[in-house]
Amino acid sequence: MERHFDEQLTVLKHTLIKMSALSEAMISDAIRVLRDRDKSAIPPIREHEEQVNLLQIEIDSICLRLIALYQPTAGDLRFILGAVKTNGDLERMADLAINICDKAERLLEKPPLGSLTASLSEMAALASLMVKESLHAYVNRTVERARAVLLRDDQLDDMNRRITNDMLALMQKDAGAIEQALDLLLVARNLERIGDHATNIAENAIFVVKGLDVRHHHG
Amino acid sequence: MERHFDEQLTVLKHTLIKMSALSEAMISDAIRVLRDRDKSAIPPIREHEEQVNLLQIEIDSICLRLIALYQPTAGDLRFILGAVKTNGDLERMADLAINICDKAERLLEKPPLGSLTASLSEMAALASLMVKESLHAYVNRTVERARAVLLRDDQLDDMNRRITNDMLALMQKDAGAIEQALDLLLVARNLERIGDHATNIAENAIFVVKGLDVRHHHG
Repeated sequence: MERHFDEQLTVLKHTLIKMSALSEAMISDAIRVLRDRDKSAIPPIREHEEQVNLLQIEIDSICLRLIALYQPTAGDLRFILGAVKTNGDLERMADLAINICDKAERLLEKPPLGSLTASLSEMAALASLMVKESLHAYVNRTVERARAVLLRDDQLDDMNRRITNDMLALMQKDAGAIEQALDLLLVARNLERIGDHATNIAENAIFVVKGLDVRHHHG
Repeated sequence: MERHFDEQLTVLKHTLIKMSALSEAMISDAIRVLRDRDKSAIPPIREHEEQVNLLQIEIDSICLRLIALYQPTAGDLRFILGAVKTNGDLERMADLAINICDKAERLLEKPPLGSLTASLSEMAALASLMVKESLHAYVNRTVERARAVLLRDDQLDDMNRRITNDMLALMQKDAGAIEQALDLLLVARNLERIGDHATNIAENAIFVVKGLDVRHHHG
């Protein structure tokens, strides 16, 4: 019985890692569409989203089955409930990557707007790293790695603020650039929200290990 | 044993209803700040958020205890796992209401911008209704009410699109109004996201009753 439980728990971890890897790839690829002005990269991202959606349903059903069959307690039960939440966060990240694609598609119909995509690429790199780190902290139950994600989120917020201000200044200077500047500002906001979801996952990791709820307290 | 389980399940339902009522109130109150230009209404909203945060921690711990002590299965287990998710959605709604407050605070420093707050009030009323209806569908396990929420979400998206277009037109006409128009556009976006969270809760309700995952399929 216990061996079966451990096997199923390993399946859960691998499925979470697979879903996270897909979400990370979707984020980087969506920003690359914008940076390289390459529309042909969009269809594979949309296919990845369908895979993420299927994995979301699969993970929920693994969690349900694990609890119903093995009645886990303490740390293992916290891990499985945390996986249900983490699953939701990963799926929303993929949604946000799709939002970025939608805006990229519209932006590519117009000439590029300065060198802003460099700051967006930097922001996307940080957001992707946070996703990877938070998921590893979760799956390996390592608190230190989780705490590092919480700190990085402030950096991401700063980047978002900077881009928002730049875009506002641009809008005020050039009415013809308003639509594009708004789209770029919203892309930065999507990346900032991806960081929020990574933060949720990191908080889940700390809860699993410590039984300690750090939400609303890590400030 | 079973009697205790039912009692604890009732506590869980009441706590969810309390949290939802607070989140609904925060949404309406945040929009009222904007409509009545009344800054004094902000501090009570921030106090509500602290209550919501405490309820979030409480609900997670009730769910954990219910599973660990009573090993529920089938519909009851789905209800409790769904409550963990619903809990997250309710807390994010409260966060979004706080985002609206932050923008309202900044907007009140400037003269009002046309009659836009009427459309925002209409949008907020619909979003609040969706929150109420989805939570009732969840707690009472009624599929029809849940499906009605899924339909309303399209309406909310339309309202958001309309406001976004109005704000874009305003920005292009009047550079001096750009900051305010952007804030108002982001308020509409926050309301639209509140509707997304209500949609999640409605999907959870259908899953609890039917054991049927309607996510990514109700289109």
